[in-house]
Amino acid sequence: MQNNLIIYNTLSKKKERFKPIHPSFVGIYVCGPTVYSDAHLGHARPAITFDLLFRYLTHLKYKVRYVRNITDVGHLENETLGEGEDRIEKKARQEQIEPMEVVQKYVNTYHKNMDQLNTLSPSIEPRATGHIIEQIELIKILINSGYAYESNGSVYFDILKYNKKYQYGKLSGRVLDELISNIRDIEGQDEKRNSFDFALWKKASPEHLMRWPSPWSDGFPGWHVECSAMSVKYLGEEFDIHGGGMDLMFPHHECEIAQSTAALGKESVHYWMHNNMITINGQKMARSLGNFITLDQLFSGDHPALEQAYSPMTIRFFMLQAHYRSTLDFSNEALQAAEKGFQKLMKAVESLNKLKLSENSTIDVIKLKEKCYEALDDDLNSPVLLSHLFEGVRIVNSVIDGTEKIDAPGQVSLKALFNTFVFEILGLKEEKSGKNDEKLTGDLINMIVKLRQDAKNRKEFDVSDKIRLELNKLGVTIKDRKDGVDWERE
Amino acid sequence: MQNNLIIYNTLSKKKERFKPIHPSFVGIYVCGPTVYSDAHLGHARPAITFDLLFRYLTHLKYKVRYVRNITDVGHLENETLGEGEDRIEKKARQEQIEPMEVVQKYVNTYHKNMDQLNTLSPSIEPRATGHIIEQIELIKILINSGYAYESNGSVYFDILKYNKKYQYGKLSGRVLDELISNIRDIEGQDEKRNSFDFALWKKASPEHLMRWPSPWSDGFPGWHVECSAMSVKYLGEEFDIHGGGMDLMFPHHECEIAQSTAALGKESVHYWMHNNMITINGQKMARSLGNFITLDQLFSGDHPALEQAYSPMTIRFFMLQAHYRSTLDFSNEALQAAEKGFQKLMKAVESLNKLKLSENSTIDVIKLKEKCYEALDDDLNSPVLLSHLFEGVRIVNSVIDGTEKIDAPGQVSLKALFNTFVFEILGLKEEKSGKNDEKLTGDLINMIVKLRQDAKNRKEFDVSDKIRLELNKLGVTIKDRKDGVDWERE
Repeated sequence: MQNNLIIYNTLSKKKERFKPIHPSFVGIYVCGPTVYSDAHLGHARPAITFDLLFRYLTHLKYKVRYVRNITDVGHLENETLGEGEDRIEKKARQEQIEPMEVVQKYVNTYHKNMDQLNTLSPSIEPRATGHIIEQIELIKILINSGYAYESNGSVYFDILKYNKKYQYGKLSGRVLDELISNIRDIEGQDEKRNSFDFALWKKASPEHLMRWPSPWSDGFPGWHVECSAMSVKYLGEEFDIHGGGMDLMFPHHECEIAQSTAALGKESVHYWMHNNMITINGQKMARSLGNFITLDQLFSGDHPALEQAYSPMTIRFFMLQAHYRSTLDFSNEALQAAEKGFQKLMKAVESLNKLKLSENSTIDVIKLKEKCYEALDDDLNSPVLLSHLFEGVRIVNSVIDGTEKIDAPGQVSLKALFNTFVFEILGLKEEKSGKNDEKLTGDLINMIVKLRQDAKNRKEFDVSDKIRLELNKLGVTIKDRKDGVDWERE
Repeated sequence: MQNNLIIYNTLSKKKERFKPIHPSFVGIYVCGPTVYSDAHLGHARPAITFDLLFRYLTHLKYKVRYVRNITDVGHLENETLGEGEDRIEKKARQEQIEPMEVVQKYVNTYHKNMDQLNTLSPSIEPRATGHIIEQIELIKILINSGYAYESNGSVYFDILKYNKKYQYGKLSGRVLDELISNIRDIEGQDEKRNSFDFALWKKASPEHLMRWPSPWSDGFPGWHVECSAMSVKYLGEEFDIHGGGMDLMFPHHECEIAQSTAALGKESVHYWMHNNMITINGQKMARSLGNFITLDQLFSGDHPALEQAYSPMTIRFFMLQAHYRSTLDFSNEALQAAEKGFQKLMKAVESLNKLKLSENSTIDVIKLKEKCYEALDDDLNSPVLLSHLFEGVRIVNSVIDGTEKIDAPGQVSLKALFNTFVFEILGLKEEKSGKNDEKLTGDLINMIVKLRQDAKNRKEFDVSDKIRLELNKLGVTIKDRKDGVDWERE
């Protein structure tokens, strides 16, 4: 097992050679969705980014354990301050159903959308509510080692104490002084030693539905503690890669680092990777701006900001056209261009099978393949990889035009190259809509029926009989009626 | 909200009028799969049976909370004795992966197959490992009330003690004396007071991976306790319906009743429903008999016992052709007959839109609809419902033949009837294979291209030009080459 992969480590802010802890295994933990509403573009980007990483490492023959969690408790409305109502519980109240019914509904939508985007299932998809004991155990350790304190049934992480020994804010680059001056005291925060301390365990108010017994109170875990508990449970005290969206760097990942470091006396994560954000027509995506687009809306075109529907593969292709660390701006123009680009790529893949072969070849597939690997190894540079694949598209078209020549072994290697990079690693796939085929099929049969009628009108009965017979062979029966012709498929 | 539904209650062994606890709500708990291998026919039957119940109650406008669990810990190899290795942990050892990777893999397959069978997602799908705390709390109550005892770090349910006050075995009809004489003492059972006592908590051996801290030991819950804990958590101390396969009656449901009754002092479940078993060519399905068929194998035809592939809707239709309390024998002949029956039904649905309407009608749709409801109300008698729907099929065909007449309102009612019962309640759906359409589309285009060539050969150039033009309109481009004709779709 070896690799030439270089990863940009958000923690060191440098590109680093990727060296897994165990020679043939890779452990990856990625922050998944909080399941209280439909999946949107902001969910698609990390899913596709780390799917690419998962696919590439698997292609390199690593045994990859890819853990992506489901947050189904503890994510409060104001995530910076860690205050407000639980997002899932709020939705449950609005819809008058059980919090776990909310969870089930939006986990289902998320899974459906991720399938449509052709992202592979993670190896393990742990849920916060499924690991309350593990979180309680972690909190106990933090209290025992003095990094957390109980106050009125809740438990908080003591950032000042932690910062004496370790450095709080090293991932996001925030310094504690800045936090101290920025965060004002808020009502109800007085049970904390410092207003920037974050909750590990919250005592539940009497009407709160999602609650579990603990040594401190009937309550629920804070948002950040689940990821520290679950990553270590499934990947070990130290593991290779932790990923997520850039918006999670502060406070979520910063708090994760503090929790794990305080509990284990060492850092858990070797490489931190963060995908950048998405804008829509240059603006931040926000419900208040009316540009909040769910994946279902994108795929159906059912949103005022959309000129048409965009297929899952158009979205995937579009995201891969940008490097994961660049911002990505959605617009109808950009999506339409991506749609064309994707179709061009798929058409070349199809043409590849029908190329006219020559005795010799003017094409260097080996060189092209090397370049493709180089692009991936350079911090998963998918846009550069795509540009190399479009060099492959140019080659295919040149062979068709006759300006380049390809021999049989060349064709085999070029096909293998497209298979590996387009389908296996980039995770694109052909999109043939059964619905369109059904409509086209009907149109074609109608056209043939009309041709037969024309032949009859010209009294070419041998032609019309032959047409009926041929259609019959394809399972289509023509029935002449007084008022026209009917047909039926088997 | 009202209903005329009669349900066969396995507990009373009688058909009973269904009266929900709360007038407009229904709570259903169904035992789901233990996720350590591919889903098979034995999983499909309860899923389809209780999907029918869920759909019918929803159709009747009840707000239904349908809970179906995932067993991901504690189901041991010998389920009658409650001994042996944990099924998931064993599979993990064999495949050299984490137990939770086994769970993820087979949950994914199960969900995929259930989607293919068009079963609706349950409202909540709780997992045993996600409710360890709830199980521990229940065990504490049982110990405190004297119905359970700790022994060497494990906790067992005291059946003799329970039987003094309540009746153990009332669901399955087993009497305690029989159990006492049948179960011989087994090695390692000596920590139990009686060999038929069942485990609520098992102390984990040092090498056991799936383990949680508890007041008694680091260990894991027994198989039966999860369902008592999760049903009460999500449906309340008393709820309407508990379902599952007949094979679960003993010991699983018997133990559930004992746990819940002992803890709550009353029975939780108002109606117990059990689907009957499946045989294959008259034999029990078993891996050792080589007749163990997974759903993936059924859908692909990839099993020596299968003469062909059977589509998910063929399987669903086949299962609905039998009443859920009857045994059901799988054979190629029976499946092929089901396939034909299903196609006949779908064809009638299609023809319904093209019926020739008359001024008056010879058909009584209202009567037919009443009969359909009567069949469902009679303990979900789906085979009788299907026979009424085939009376509908006969009507459609008679109208086509001209032996019966239908008017416009009649057609509307008949369409509504098919929509309600075939699609909404029985959960059948049309199966148009995109793949077949794709092939047919290609064949049809080739046929048209050939017709154009024939026209050219006959020097009917107006015809050949028109064909090219018409194809163009449908998005198909014809390219004449020296060696023949190529075509391309948009």
